[in-house]
Amino acid sequence: MVNFCSDNASGAAPEIMRALQAANDGWAMPYGNDDWTRRLQAQVEEIFETEAAVLPVATGTAANVICLSVMTPPYGAIYCHRESHINVDECGAPELFTGGAKLVALPGDHAKIAPATLDAAIVNAGDVHAVQPAAISLTNSSEAGTVYTPEEVRAISEIAKAHGLGLHMDGARFANALVTLGCSPAEATWKAGVDALSLGATKNGILAGELVVVFDPGKAEELGYRRKRGGHLFSKMRFLSAQLEAYLTDDLWLRNARHANAMAATLAEGLAELPGAKLSHPVEANEIFVRLPEPVIQGLFDRGFQFYRWGPEANCEARLVLAFNTDPAQIDAFLTAARELS
Amino acid sequence: MVNFCSDNASGAAPEIMRALQAANDGWAMPYGNDDWTRRLQAQVEEIFETEAAVLPVATGTAANVICLSVMTPPYGAIYCHRESHINVDECGAPELFTGGAKLVALPGDHAKIAPATLDAAIVNAGDVHAVQPAAISLTNSSEAGTVYTPEEVRAISEIAKAHGLGLHMDGARFANALVTLGCSPAEATWKAGVDALSLGATKNGILAGELVVVFDPGKAEELGYRRKRGGHLFSKMRFLSAQLEAYLTDDLWLRNARHANAMAATLAEGLAELPGAKLSHPVEANEIFVRLPEPVIQGLFDRGFQFYRWGPEANCEARLVLAFNTDPAQIDAFLTAARELS
Amino acid sequence: MVNFCSDNASGAAPEIMRALQAANDGWAMPYGNDDWTRRLQAQVEEIFETEAAVLPVATGTAANVICLSVMTPPYGAIYCHRESHINVDECGAPELFTGGAKLVALPGDHAKIAPATLDAAIVNAGDVHAVQPAAISLTNSSEAGTVYTPEEVRAISEIAKAHGLGLHMDGARFANALVTLGCSPAEATWKAGVDALSLGATKNGILAGELVVVFDPGKAEELGYRRKRGGHLFSKMRFLSAQLEAYLTDDLWLRNARHANAMAATLAEGLAELPGAKLSHPVEANEIFVRLPEPVIQGLFDRGFQFYRWGPEANCEARLVLAFNTDPAQIDAFLTAARELS
Amino acid sequence: MVNFCSDNASGAAPEIMRALQAANDGWAMPYGNDDWTRRLQAQVEEIFETEAAVLPVATGTAANVICLSVMTPPYGAIYCHRESHINVDECGAPELFTGGAKLVALPGDHAKIAPATLDAAIVNAGDVHAVQPAAISLTNSSEAGTVYTPEEVRAISEIAKAHGLGLHMDGARFANALVTLGCSPAEATWKAGVDALSLGATKNGILAGELVVVFDPGKAEELGYRRKRGGHLFSKMRFLSAQLEAYLTDDLWLRNARHANAMAATLAEGLAELPGAKLSHPVEANEIFVRLPEPVIQGLFDRGFQFYRWGPEANCEARLVLAFNTDPAQIDAFLTAARELS
Repeated sequence: MVNFCSDNASGAAPEIMRALQAANDGWAMPYGNDDWTRRLQAQVEEIFETEAAVLPVATGTAANVICLSVMTPPYGAIYCHRESHINVDECGAPELFTGGAKLVALPGDHAKIAPATLDAAIVNAGDVHAVQPAAISLTNSSEAGTVYTPEEVRAISEIAKAHGLGLHMDGARFANALVTLGCSPAEATWKAGVDALSLGATKNGILAGELVVVFDPGKAEELGYRRKRGGHLFSKMRFLSAQLEAYLTDDLWLRNARHANAMAATLAEGLAELPGAKLSHPVEANEIFVRLPEPVIQGLFDRGFQFYRWGPEANCEARLVLAFNTDPAQIDAFLTAARELS
Repeated sequence: MVNFCSDNASGAAPEIMRALQAANDGWAMPYGNDDWTRRLQAQVEEIFETEAAVLPVATGTAANVICLSVMTPPYGAIYCHRESHINVDECGAPELFTGGAKLVALPGDHAKIAPATLDAAIVNAGDVHAVQPAAISLTNSSEAGTVYTPEEVRAISEIAKAHGLGLHMDGARFANALVTLGCSPAEATWKAGVDALSLGATKNGILAGELVVVFDPGKAEELGYRRKRGGHLFSKMRFLSAQLEAYLTDDLWLRNARHANAMAATLAEGLAELPGAKLSHPVEANEIFVRLPEPVIQGLFDRGFQFYRWGPEANCEARLVLAFNTDPAQIDAFLTAARELS
Repeated sequence: MVNFCSDNASGAAPEIMRALQAANDGWAMPYGNDDWTRRLQAQVEEIFETEAAVLPVATGTAANVICLSVMTPPYGAIYCHRESHINVDECGAPELFTGGAKLVALPGDHAKIAPATLDAAIVNAGDVHAVQPAAISLTNSSEAGTVYTPEEVRAISEIAKAHGLGLHMDGARFANALVTLGCSPAEATWKAGVDALSLGATKNGILAGELVVVFDPGKAEELGYRRKRGGHLFSKMRFLSAQLEAYLTDDLWLRNARHANAMAATLAEGLAELPGAKLSHPVEANEIFVRLPEPVIQGLFDRGFQFYRWGPEANCEARLVLAFNTDPAQIDAFLTAARELS
Repeated sequence: MVNFCSDNASGAAPEIMRALQAANDGWAMPYGNDDWTRRLQAQVEEIFETEAAVLPVATGTAANVICLSVMTPPYGAIYCHRESHINVDECGAPELFTGGAKLVALPGDHAKIAPATLDAAIVNAGDVHAVQPAAISLTNSSEAGTVYTPEEVRAISEIAKAHGLGLHMDGARFANALVTLGCSPAEATWKAGVDALSLGATKNGILAGELVVVFDPGKAEELGYRRKRGGHLFSKMRFLSAQLEAYLTDDLWLRNARHANAMAATLAEGLAELPGAKLSHPVEANEIFVRLPEPVIQGLFDRGFQFYRWGPEANCEARLVLAFNTDPAQIDAFLTAARELS
């Protein structure tokens, strides 16, 4: 079976399963008062070369909205791309956790926000009738599989700082962005002006787990209350932390992402050569959006290949997501079939 | 190390680890569109002998507040025991998920609500100035380690129905109650008038996982939105469902609970014989609350036994929680030490 | 002083002041248990030729958000024009009162929503990741001073009904729309498919007061709780109701609106003849949006005329709002000055 | 007709009606950008001898919950008397405006909170499982018609400050308390440690209007957003401010309160002499709670006197509220009838 539906259709890496098994040894105090969680805190601070509030949670939505909840008052505006996960795929979780803040959806090519677009959108500061500019959220890699460079992030963050706004990065696929950029985690985030990061792991080889990383240790206490209040404080936290520790150990997260990105590059290269194929966005991480002739799409489905159409059916657009454990043979099989159908 | 702090300081049962390992096989569609979750739905309905909306979540707080969120308007009142988890241990999660409903905290011996207390508290229906009676929440087994019988639940539910209120059961330790009662899951819940159950598993031998069980399949859709909006919809759901499936298979949940309860009974029996010891509540599940002479408490701490004091220090009260994997040798060691210190 | 800034810069009609004075006679039971409020209920039902839940409140924002709060779950989507008051001028009040529902802002010429635009925007019903289509809000007369005909409303409401959505009308300037349409209040609202109306009065000659009118008496109780919970239940309700009763008596509301609209028509006609002037929207109620040469705008300000620029200064657009008590001499003075400046 | 049901069954003082009439003169900029509101700001600061954020709103509930909304995070605890208006008469408005904070209801004789009770209740600071101590709310005069002295307030505020909590005073009947105390407004509030005051006026002779007074001008901006977001920002603000300005001018508020209190004292004195009568609380403001023989209560109702029973009918307790315009002849008539019925 070839499944390119989503990287969350993959399972977990063997390193993660071993870490879980190892963590299941004896008793450990609950709610994060355990060695795994303590080590994870230190590990994240070392990897990011700075102090931070670090909180494991189970889902990407939880990570995003807990971050946002400390960045905006309930009467705040959060600027985001109109295709962003927080805007279209979280069923109102940001509104719930912020107490009703408003997401201001911005357009932008390839699911990225241009500085000028953002700048023009930040209005009404001080106007009592309007929600107040509070925060900006970028997704890296983006919902279109594209990547913000540190320079692009800095251009956004300078606007943010000029208006007194916080900058959040939804990093559900942060590792995929990072290996493309080739820069350090610090350079991709706080050194470029990011205040809070949702550091994804689930899509990249663990069972379930993401990290709230806020580059201000003073926020740890408030974040803790908000995590608990959201029902996201695990009692047997060691099992979350052990996964995340293994994920960040020996560059597993980067190795996994590098594989997924390489698979995407190979597949994209092959697809681009098909007659009538057209990539919708640059392929900069592990996702491919491609327009294909309808007979090719339908034919692939008929042969049992699994992936999602994107947008209205008439668009003939497919999304193909590659994962940490995608077998190169799957790429071959997919391309072979696509060529036969062309 | 002897740790009686909480059943959530225990790890996971081997059956659960094996199920996790088995679930990590190939690709599975995300967000519950997988075989494990489908089987789990059927399994719960079979065990409870009725149709139900069944949603896996990761924490007990999540299960409780998602249940409550479909049982009350934001201007509703939820009646609960003043020591209940929703009232004192969830940092306002019920208020968040219900949009601001008010918990009305009721007194009651041994952490149980008496029907007369409840009946007297349900006031102001139809009074526009007051929050409106909406739901009742019981904990079984309770925060004092006591158990509601089906008859007691029915007495409560009759009051609930008379006032048009829903009845929620916080079953973080439901299995522990059930094995004490010796009745069927159905008899302990919907047959006694329970509308929604938080069916706990984490404390009883799994890594993380609880079930929202609402005995009205028509609520499944709304529950789904509320789970997602709370950030509680797992993408790799199979790993939650696989744990819960194993938990409910071959009576693992009951066997685990039976062991924990038996350990509690043995320990309680031994403690009761100590000079100056006094059990605060009947020991009906896996928790013991006991007053001991201060030198005994302090001496046990000094020898490295781990447990929590309960209430103000001057109370000299200890809480001892036994788990699915408590070693009888720990009971012996604890009692031996306590006797020596007496 | 000539003030065309807003109709809420006007004062109150003499009929209203007399009604207030008359209401201040002796004692009256609070919270709406008074004769004025009872008569108002009957009066609204008579004028709208149907039963309805009728609740006086003090502000237009309150009326809007209380209406919306009974039309959407907290995970709902409310479709509205991107220039609508609920979207840009209520500082997040809809999000607060609905518990976090999302406003989906739609484009549309002259601040009106086209049926096709709406139809294309209603997506994701049943998709657990997305907020769920719940309600539509139209403003009549609109934020651009244009008017929806009953036929236009019906075209919208048919889409609403097809998707199971409720239809709200923000009628802050409903009287101004009504006198333009020349139809009955019923025809402009529930007969065209409107479920809930914010019936404005403040802008049209009273001190403060609006009506929540929901064309379903069964909603009265829930609306009452939500009004109270919003802090909008007046104790001395008679003073709200007396104003609103006088407003609706002897067609005062229609006479006031007719005057304001006539003033707008006269002023618009005069402005249209100025060299370089261009009306941005058809003038169908009591608001004029007009582009004028910058020297004319600046000159008018210099001479002490009061009105607001609209949009960015470079647009050279002015908003002129006429009121129930605008003196025709003000129109003359304004036009004379504008001509001199042209 | 003799109506002792509530001071909000009274109408408005002639000074207020004249001020309203005077305010209805020409055009005024909306939303508080008017001379009345500016003068009111200065007037309040002069009367309270300090700078403050001053915001007119229409209802006491609005004033209370807007104050509280800037004093607590959504995961906060607000300590209040269990009979307090915010706890039992606002249908969850505090929960709505604070985003879900929890009211912790405290017992206390005569509807007052004793310092020791408060001190014992402030628990769990820093415990991630629990809502966090955030604010305290006192009502002065209280729901039992009793009054906190500045010394009593200071004893509470010292506890508040020691725990880093804010202190709110619900002053729906603040003027009634003040004339009893004979101290300055400053001494009764900020000099005794009060951070925020809901300064009532509606019950004491105006149509509708209360003041949010926060003794920290830096909070004005946030309060403004929260007022707007609650739908409580009046467009024709001058009509609110004009009432409140007149209320505070020439000691009208104090004269009105003095009259009401004097009426209460006279009535209470007369009632106390009745056989079988027993005052439930000291009569320190304008409210009387009295137990009377059932035949007296019923007889008074039969003769058309209007007042409320208090508590369960078997209590035979009546609440009698006197107003700024209570006619002494009403007192005589009531006492005469009560004596005849005794």
